[in-house]
Amino acid sequence: MRISKALLLATTLCISTPLWAAPADEPIQPLPAAVVKDAKLVELGKKLFFDPRLSLSGFISCNSCHNLSMGGSDNLKSSIGHNWQKGPINSPTVLNSSLNVAQFWDGRALTLRDQAGGPIANPGEMASTHELAVATLQSIPGYVGEFKSVFGNDKVTIEEVTKAIAAFEETLVTPNSRFDKWLKGDKKALTPTELAGYELFKESGCTACHNGSAVGGNTFQKMGVMAPYKTTNLAQGRIAVTKAEADRFNFKVPTLRNVELTYPYFHDGEAATLTEAVETMGRIQLGKTFTPEENSKIVAFLKTLTGDQPDFKLPILPPSTDKTTPPKPFD
Amino acid sequence: MRISKALLLATTLCISTPLWAAPADEPIQPLPAAVVKDAKLVELGKKLFFDPRLSLSGFISCNSCHNLSMGGSDNLKSSIGHNWQKGPINSPTVLNSSLNVAQFWDGRALTLRDQAGGPIANPGEMASTHELAVATLQSIPGYVGEFKSVFGNDKVTIEEVTKAIAAFEETLVTPNSRFDKWLKGDKKALTPTELAGYELFKESGCTACHNGSAVGGNTFQKMGVMAPYKTTNLAQGRIAVTKAEADRFNFKVPTLRNVELTYPYFHDGEAATLTEAVETMGRIQLGKTFTPEENSKIVAFLKTLTGDQPDFKLPILPPSTDKTTPPKPFD
Repeated sequence: MRISKALLLATTLCISTPLWAAPADEPIQPLPAAVVKDAKLVELGKKLFFDPRLSLSGFISCNSCHNLSMGGSDNLKSSIGHNWQKGPINSPTVLNSSLNVAQFWDGRALTLRDQAGGPIANPGEMASTHELAVATLQSIPGYVGEFKSVFGNDKVTIEEVTKAIAAFEETLVTPNSRFDKWLKGDKKALTPTELAGYELFKESGCTACHNGSAVGGNTFQKMGVMAPYKTTNLAQGRIAVTKAEADRFNFKVPTLRNVELTYPYFHDGEAATLTEAVETMGRIQLGKTFTPEENSKIVAFLKTLTGDQPDFKLPILPPSTDKTTPPKPFD
Repeated sequence: MRISKALLLATTLCISTPLWAAPADEPIQPLPAAVVKDAKLVELGKKLFFDPRLSLSGFISCNSCHNLSMGGSDNLKSSIGHNWQKGPINSPTVLNSSLNVAQFWDGRALTLRDQAGGPIANPGEMASTHELAVATLQSIPGYVGEFKSVFGNDKVTIEEVTKAIAAFEETLVTPNSRFDKWLKGDKKALTPTELAGYELFKESGCTACHNGSAVGGNTFQKMGVMAPYKTTNLAQGRIAVTKAEADRFNFKVPTLRNVELTYPYFHDGEAATLTEAVETMGRIQLGKTFTPEENSKIVAFLKTLTGDQPDFKLPILPPSTDKTTPPKPFD
């Protein structure tokens, strides 16, 4: 709702956008810091996010492909799943994912809770089952105690697991980027080049899709509006969810928050650099050819969107016991 | 040297070992906390330890197989390497590894620095080369600045990389276990069962090999002194280094610090539980058959060796740049 309001304001008020504009006049809004509602739930979710025992191999955790040391992504074109399977699509960052209109590139999960259950049971990713993952946690007294303390009962459920992971993920917002500081009135937070890049970003129409506090993430859009996007990647986008032909090659607009950290770009990961991504977006979405100078200004602006990265202690996981089914990496 | 002195004292003085014994009378010594000599070097090493860009795939870091959330091990029989290759041997814990007489099960690296370079360039592990790893770091300004700040020059070298990783690993000691508290005089730190387990551990001869502050790690010993150890694992132990037939099936005695966390056990990872490990050790090393009660007492004692686990913030890694060679997970 906040995003929609911001958009409305942006559309209504922003006939011209002077450099001294207050945040409400801008199509991009500052990112508010996360508010932790249930610290114990978040702490449990953090452990689960880092626990490779949710995978069949005992080797792959949520953090493997959404590495919080690396912008919440794996920085690979497509991810590595169980048995080194090549994933079908680029892993989106988990940072600020709570602001997305839906999860996955095609939006097939409406909530972070729905999303969290997917990779655990996906044969190409963590390759476990919800039953096995829950049985594993249930065999570990350190977890059972924590689940009981959070949820008040002795029996771990997959709903509790995904609720905890989602609660942790909701804390993964990255406020205080230099751009946010500028938005909030610190006129020295950006260099003239970065500001010029932002002006160009708006003037060129990038903010039609990349807007709101997440600078994207809030709509599905056709990949290739002005010119077709050529790729060998097989993903067809949102049509997989809606079955509507109109949604073919519609993908969720990715957030540009921390985009300096979340290379490579696009659903197929084919753009290795921001320069390349800006060039392609200009050409296929806006019908524009940016000069090298323009491109580098926009890239300079994009790099101001890097905010405070996750700031917490490495979680220490409770040990398995004699009752825990050992992982099966090679079966 | 400290370990040798402790051993000497233990051998000289410990005719009987009363429960009120001072530490010097015990074959196991308390683990002193790590002293950080160069905080910037350690911080750099921590980042490198967590950085999967030291691998060809961009997916495997030191922490993948020596997971500091899980006792510094991967809790797998044998590790998963590049392209999901099955490792030849169980990954030893990195915790307290600075106390080892040498690194790897066969001791083929004399120092942590020597060890750190191994997996990076091992085709079955991280599958990179020292040249590629260094070129990758050299392409990342965030790293170049940190290397310069620590080493005073602009050119990253593999020697600097392994020096930093080793310096970080030297901080990974785990003091303040309940057993250490008992050793230091807190008589309530152990239960009567745990104490009885320790007495049995000594009386049975376990401390012949598992002694010193790391409760092992300081000698190579034959696996199967009293009865042959049967395994399908191909590792032949220290003979691979010394070429001496007498060293066939000699392996470095693993530390028992944090042994509750470092399952499964032995160089082949074939003992899934501590109960199984104690049974096998008694039988093949000591010619003893522990009763179930004796076994469980020893296991109870072993679980008192879990010390303070790594306590630091998740490192945030500096991003790659347009000049960085992208990882090659699937080539």
